[in-house]
Amino acid sequence: MTTGLPMTVADPSLPARVRIHEVGARDGLQNEKTAVPTAVKAEFVRRLAAAGLDTVEATSFVHPKWVPQLADAEELFPLVRDLPVRLPVLVPNERGLDRALALGAREIAVFASATESFAKANLNRTVDEALALFAPTVTRAIEAGLKVRGYLSMCFGDPWEGAVPIEQVVRVTKALAEMGCDELSLGDTIGVATPGHVQALLTALNEAGVPTSRIAVHFHDTYGQALSNTLAALRHGVTTVDASAGGLGGCPYAKSATGNLATEDLVWMLDGLGIETGVDLAALTATSGWMAEQLGRPSPSRTVRALSHKE
Amino acid sequence: MTTGLPMTVADPSLPARVRIHEVGARDGLQNEKTAVPTAVKAEFVRRLAAAGLDTVEATSFVHPKWVPQLADAEELFPLVRDLPVRLPVLVPNERGLDRALALGAREIAVFASATESFAKANLNRTVDEALALFAPTVTRAIEAGLKVRGYLSMCFGDPWEGAVPIEQVVRVTKALAEMGCDELSLGDTIGVATPGHVQALLTALNEAGVPTSRIAVHFHDTYGQALSNTLAALRHGVTTVDASAGGLGGCPYAKSATGNLATEDLVWMLDGLGIETGVDLAALTATSGWMAEQLGRPSPSRTVRALSHKE
Repeated sequence: MTTGLPMTVADPSLPARVRIHEVGARDGLQNEKTAVPTAVKAEFVRRLAAAGLDTVEATSFVHPKWVPQLADAEELFPLVRDLPVRLPVLVPNERGLDRALALGAREIAVFASATESFAKANLNRTVDEALALFAPTVTRAIEAGLKVRGYLSMCFGDPWEGAVPIEQVVRVTKALAEMGCDELSLGDTIGVATPGHVQALLTALNEAGVPTSRIAVHFHDTYGQALSNTLAALRHGVTTVDASAGGLGGCPYAKSATGNLATEDLVWMLDGLGIETGVDLAALTATSGWMAEQLGRPSPSRTVRALSHKE
Repeated sequence: MTTGLPMTVADPSLPARVRIHEVGARDGLQNEKTAVPTAVKAEFVRRLAAAGLDTVEATSFVHPKWVPQLADAEELFPLVRDLPVRLPVLVPNERGLDRALALGAREIAVFASATESFAKANLNRTVDEALALFAPTVTRAIEAGLKVRGYLSMCFGDPWEGAVPIEQVVRVTKALAEMGCDELSLGDTIGVATPGHVQALLTALNEAGVPTSRIAVHFHDTYGQALSNTLAALRHGVTTVDASAGGLGGCPYAKSATGNLATEDLVWMLDGLGIETGVDLAALTATSGWMAEQLGRPSPSRTVRALSHKE
């Protein structure tokens, strides 16, 4: 990296600090074809924490039949749970919650769909059946003192239905909020959102009583739009942004293999804007370069590629 | 493409129309290693025009010794000059202007550097010597009734100097404007800009008397920042954006091979924002897919990859 770049020029209309919710070890690895040894996953989580990420989603307690890549959750979690960072785990139902609680997880995430087609494809249920399914999970988690994040997929477009009406997304987001999820992560699972759409959805959510402080954004870079959508969300006041180290993880429903917003590309922008994240970009890039070697393929992150090339 | 995507949600604070200055056939091809036959280049320009781009930079009259990829400018230009679109050509000096005038060019572009290091590397001159060199070229072009665009490289960062002071960029931009360039294209040649920096430079230029209406932005996607920087520029009122079909062209001074903002990624965002460009995204994507086949490598454009994969 050329010293002193990016140059920092703040924009006073943007937040002073952003919390990055790092999903590479869970959302990233669950969509990678290469089998990754448990010890490597644990080392990945450790390095992400050491790079300054304060929230590292660690693994998933979904049934191994559905997510074989993360079937080692029971072995992995004890290896990382004492790290001094937030370590949410994905949980689909009460059985998953039991497993997470038994291991000492302090935060969970549940997942719902904004569209009927994806609820059917992903969970073989209607949207409302899926909500009903995990309502007791959320309730029990809260009673146990856990933080609960709700992921919502297909908030902007759906591969079967096309554009997703904003009121539909608002309805499901509200249901998740009322169920007790303290954070709501709006997923653009197929990467089709654009900035006006982002602003409109956030405004509609506010009008429906969901405050911006409870909203996180989760953009995919399938069409190269993730970072400009993030900028639009920041301008609206969003301060929690999901990203995946090295851009790990494609979306199985968008075959072009470009998936999550790369954490490095996000940190480059936030560093330039003088927005605090606590992340050391050089350490993070080195971690993603190391993980790319484990996976045997180059990182799709533009920043990782640019910085690695110069080394 | 899933029908109806991206969903259009306008942002009234952004311009209603943007002119895309398509640089793929010049800036793109001059940085590609593969030799492209003249007939293929002409077909590329024709297809870009047919896809609705109204400004297609066609070729360069720089000495073939420096840009061998475009040594066929004399053969190419007559093949495309009757297309009903703007066809600027790059011209480095009076000799180049003579060649362009002889072929009936109606628009030229000259190029300068915001930094001494790049002026030295690219032109073997100081910044001021370079400006003095092409001042007579600009004057003669204007007298001949041509439109003249001034490219300015390294407006945000420089591989040797790091961050480039805004006042330095303002000084050279003003010199180009006073020389008679009617349009000033601000190049982030190594792709390091971030949105606050973009806004600050545009504001400083306005304060120095350069109106936004004369400014174009030329972002590189080296660190994945091109589109969010473009959004920042649009928010400032910029309505001319440079982009390269399929993301063609790396920057020889940033070896990671990711170069210009891909026109398709830009059009996806502008379509979603309801900003008129006149471009047919499907036709443009098909053109870039065809050109990628000619070059024997996949397009670096995320949108081209995503849309091609579904076909």
